[in-house]
Amino acid sequence: MRDLSSDSRFLSVNTVTVREQGSLSVIIDAVAEAGIPGISPWRDQVQACGTAEAARRIRANGLVVTGYCRGGWFTGRGRDGFQAAVDDNLRAIDEAAALNAQCLVMVVGGLPEGSRDLHGARALARDGLATVLPHALACGVPLAIEPLHPMHCAERACVNTLAQANDLCDELGEGAGIALDVYHVWWDPDLESQIQRAGKTRLLAFHVCDWLIPTRDGLFDR
Amino acid sequence: MRDLSSDSRFLSVNTVTVREQGSLSVIIDAVAEAGIPGISPWRDQVQACGTAEAARRIRANGLVVTGYCRGGWFTGRGRDGFQAAVDDNLRAIDEAAALNAQCLVMVVGGLPEGSRDLHGARALARDGLATVLPHALACGVPLAIEPLHPMHCAERACVNTLAQANDLCDELGEGAGIALDVYHVWWDPDLESQIQRAGKTRLLAFHVCDWLIPTRDGLFDR
Repeated sequence: MRDLSSDSRFLSVNTVTVREQGSLSVIIDAVAEAGIPGISPWRDQVQACGTAEAARRIRANGLVVTGYCRGGWFTGRGRDGFQAAVDDNLRAIDEAAALNAQCLVMVVGGLPEGSRDLHGARALARDGLATVLPHALACGVPLAIEPLHPMHCAERACVNTLAQANDLCDELGEGAGIALDVYHVWWDPDLESQIQRAGKTRLLAFHVCDWLIPTRDGLFDR
Repeated sequence: MRDLSSDSRFLSVNTVTVREQGSLSVIIDAVAEAGIPGISPWRDQVQACGTAEAARRIRANGLVVTGYCRGGWFTGRGRDGFQAAVDDNLRAIDEAAALNAQCLVMVVGGLPEGSRDLHGARALARDGLATVLPHALACGVPLAIEPLHPMHCAERACVNTLAQANDLCDELGEGAGIALDVYHVWWDPDLESQIQRAGKTRLLAFHVCDWLIPTRDGLFDR
């Protein structure tokens, strides 16, 4: 077995993990200085820096943008807020394209405020992905659907298993893929078979993140 | 559609929910006085009261014991602690029989301390159930396997979906069934199909419990 522990070719820093340590400019410099080839910036950090300026700095440092975090959130305001969510995703796709990101990570959203209609939320999530996919394809930005742990089903993402993400990819076709985070999927009895089903072309991002007992992920509460 | 909201025939109070309000004797009297026909007592409460005395009080009040909580916990100490876990489950089955319980609710246990071998833990859980099943059958106490929410996979139960519980029932055969708690399974994309697969005979208990955002279930931390 190949020892990958000192092989940093596939490493990328998700900028949410160092949010408290400095601005995106500071993070970009630190990542490059550490010899890490990839970066996965978050939207609010990019917007604070300015998309063009962030793209320029990332390019100047020779970093690869392995993913842009995050699009999605199609469901929170129900059908009434659907168009606004779509419009915001179209902008996120444009930003991802400007950053030359390898994918846009999609956290689809949970139940609409006050709703318990999980089937409806899942349908809305699928409709959102299908609606923005043509623009993503035109911009050359694959959509990486990220299944989130079932504990986030109500408030963040109603796509909670790799099987669901694979089903969505089957339905959506070209331009749809998956972002797989160990933290969210480790418990899944079907994990191995669904990873095989996804295969190399569909797995657009692989996130590593510890599961602690009790778990805490306040970091991502935005 | 029949209005079940004022129909208490299927109601049963899980005694963990009123643990802070009084001893098992107090709870038994209060449940009977409220006209609720069922009770589902926890082991520590029964043991504090004495099993024979608890059985007598429950019988005297005309209550049905819809389930005894909880057996399982086969995995926490790995293979080394397996026999002790089995022995404890045999005692739990005896207590359930003394209480004339309709089932023994099984929370199978999570990962062994310090282990990340999820496949091993799941095999140990299956072995535990298979080992105690003959005694359960002999005592007339069905084992109700309870899938717990995936957020409890590491520390409480590595059976996390209704599909897993159904697979276990297929494997174990007579005497094995399922306790289904809305709190633990509501997010499952396969919920409806797996409920149909389980059917009436396999579903031994149905628990209702709110999912709050953020969720808190410190109540059950024992």
